[in-house]
Amino acid sequence: MKKIILSLMALATVSAYAQFGGRGQGNPTVPSVTENVTEDFKPAANNQAGHQYPMVNSQRMVRAQISAPNATSVGLDIDGKIYSMTKNENGVWTGTSAPQDEGFHYYQLNIDGASVPDPGSLYYYGASRWGSGIEVPSGDQDIWAVKNVPQGSMNEVYYWSSVTQAMRHCYIYFPNEYYTNTTKKYPVLYLMHGMGENEHGWAEQGHTAQIMDNLIAQGKATPFIIVIDCLDARAAQPAAAPQGGQRQGGFGGFGGGFGMGGAFQDVLIKDIIPMVEKNYRVIPDTQHRAMAGLSMGGMTTRSVTLANPKTFAYVGMFSGGTISAQDIQNAEGYKETNKVLFMSCGGKENMGVMEAAENLKKIGINATGYISEGTAHEWHTWRRSLYQFVQLIFK
Amino acid sequence: MKKIILSLMALATVSAYAQFGGRGQGNPTVPSVTENVTEDFKPAANNQAGHQYPMVNSQRMVRAQISAPNATSVGLDIDGKIYSMTKNENGVWTGTSAPQDEGFHYYQLNIDGASVPDPGSLYYYGASRWGSGIEVPSGDQDIWAVKNVPQGSMNEVYYWSSVTQAMRHCYIYFPNEYYTNTTKKYPVLYLMHGMGENEHGWAEQGHTAQIMDNLIAQGKATPFIIVIDCLDARAAQPAAAPQGGQRQGGFGGFGGGFGMGGAFQDVLIKDIIPMVEKNYRVIPDTQHRAMAGLSMGGMTTRSVTLANPKTFAYVGMFSGGTISAQDIQNAEGYKETNKVLFMSCGGKENMGVMEAAENLKKIGINATGYISEGTAHEWHTWRRSLYQFVQLIFK
Repeated sequence: MKKIILSLMALATVSAYAQFGGRGQGNPTVPSVTENVTEDFKPAANNQAGHQYPMVNSQRMVRAQISAPNATSVGLDIDGKIYSMTKNENGVWTGTSAPQDEGFHYYQLNIDGASVPDPGSLYYYGASRWGSGIEVPSGDQDIWAVKNVPQGSMNEVYYWSSVTQAMRHCYIYFPNEYYTNTTKKYPVLYLMHGMGENEHGWAEQGHTAQIMDNLIAQGKATPFIIVIDCLDARAAQPAAAPQGGQRQGGFGGFGGGFGMGGAFQDVLIKDIIPMVEKNYRVIPDTQHRAMAGLSMGGMTTRSVTLANPKTFAYVGMFSGGTISAQDIQNAEGYKETNKVLFMSCGGKENMGVMEAAENLKKIGINATGYISEGTAHEWHTWRRSLYQFVQLIFK
Repeated sequence: MKKIILSLMALATVSAYAQFGGRGQGNPTVPSVTENVTEDFKPAANNQAGHQYPMVNSQRMVRAQISAPNATSVGLDIDGKIYSMTKNENGVWTGTSAPQDEGFHYYQLNIDGASVPDPGSLYYYGASRWGSGIEVPSGDQDIWAVKNVPQGSMNEVYYWSSVTQAMRHCYIYFPNEYYTNTTKKYPVLYLMHGMGENEHGWAEQGHTAQIMDNLIAQGKATPFIIVIDCLDARAAQPAAAPQGGQRQGGFGGFGGGFGMGGAFQDVLIKDIIPMVEKNYRVIPDTQHRAMAGLSMGGMTTRSVTLANPKTFAYVGMFSGGTISAQDIQNAEGYKETNKVLFMSCGGKENMGVMEAAENLKKIGINATGYISEGTAHEWHTWRRSLYQFVQLIFK
């Protein structure tokens, strides 16, 4: 286990965040890309209405633009670099990044030393802040498109935590039929975010509802409930603050409520699962309970399921390390309980998920390894991982 | 009716938006307030986690701060003015506004001519953009606090519109008991936003779920469903774009789908109400249907209910003008159908709601006028209006 933590820590040498975002100060400044640029830029799919910028071209370069007539330097801060933008005669600054991976990226602008969100983009929580995100087109983005299929809903719910003695905030996805088939009971997946993120991640940039709705409509996933909560288990939960849809957010480090026997496990077992099983039509047994997560949420899934080997029958770890045959042999009941053990990572990561799955199969575990081609420790890997994982479970 | 529209247009001389927000370019620049400032500033309740700024003091002055070491001018853009901020030796700029009304305000920062969100705040949709908002403490903010009472949920739903031939996005509030009392059917309130806003307004800065949960827990409101949709009824709905929680937003003008017999009325009558009555446990008749809205949403409520006098029994117009005895006499069936007609505005507006209510009472309408003391054409007026209105209906 130490080895896996160390390997994740090593991954995190550039940044400890689940996905590395534009974080400004300290990033190297490089020139805006000007050579071999294909001039077919289009507005990003997730721009604010009426905004042409940011744009993306067919090479997956990101181009930002902002009016700042009195500024002396403006930069596009993405993927660990600040690209210097250049000013035209109208005081409008434009800059272009190197090609980005397919999928979602956090970024920001830097104006005369101030790191700020781009007023052209929508805002997301990640890298420990609400800020800009950009969707770089991908070949498989259709998997989370909003389509005219029976729609589930993503519900925002507050609940009381006996562990933290405060209100907490989560999202709960219900499949379409939950509302019309009012006697049926459903399985539940508990789905966790990564470091520097919170419950907004899977609900927003993760497109959990759309991935599920589309798969259920195709008959590829069975309808079930997904509970998206927050790893932050500190007593002074910001969730209790008086605001609506957006939570302040606030989980930035390995401290506080991290899962290895920590406070979050208590919140999950004592508060979240009982709240869900009391309030909603769920099947409250091991064979209808799954846990999965990305990055730190995958590590937490690992630790919580190993520490509670008879609680979850389905386990998913997305860029969250691996589980070994020895781990399972040390966790009494895990082998008998587990129905699916899924481990994934990006093709640009090296987490040994395929080998780990092979080793687990040898001891009779229904293990699956999955590698997201061409992506790194980032949301596109995790959306694809969710898409794969939910097709395997509760069947 | 023309008179009311003209009076709303007059109100909107400074800005056509439901609530005026920091909109940068063109606003007058004034010095930061430095005299008679009480130095008891505290972080705003809706700051991003870990952010001390923006702050508010007991005089309801807003103080913003940002690090911009290379900038030559930075301003706090709030309530139609840009307050010049001043730089310290570390390159950190600070500025203080004049006192603001109690409640919620849009604002932004201006850095060397660039208008950008403040990285310290949460982001809201209004004034036709996602951007910063600040909560100025109010004596009655307890009405929307997240409390340990039975919690309803705010559900994000996509649905197909036959009118626009596109997917649309709305929020639906369900009271707590909707999930546990699985045979009961509920009344429905259709609740609309104002100009430059969208369905996020009532779900987020409007705190609809918290206002309802708290009132239901106190026995002051009967449990019912609230559908929060968007007045934008253009065919190319941004709602269909592939992103989750945040919509791009995009309703900025009187054109497009505005309600006076326009496209939105069609969407409401042909798509939204049938979708709700088909998918959820609602009582699908006039006596269990209400419509209300703020500003342009109030005007739309006026026009839709007068054009469909036998469809809604309860009507609320918050800063949305008034209905006269003559209007009602011209709308056959309105008088016999209506159970409550509620008209409100801020104390700093003059919309004649009290006189209008008196006139309606004379013809036998159960009319109520309400004035929100000390507030203007802004969210605090509308939160208070919702708080009053929902206690009157479905009883």
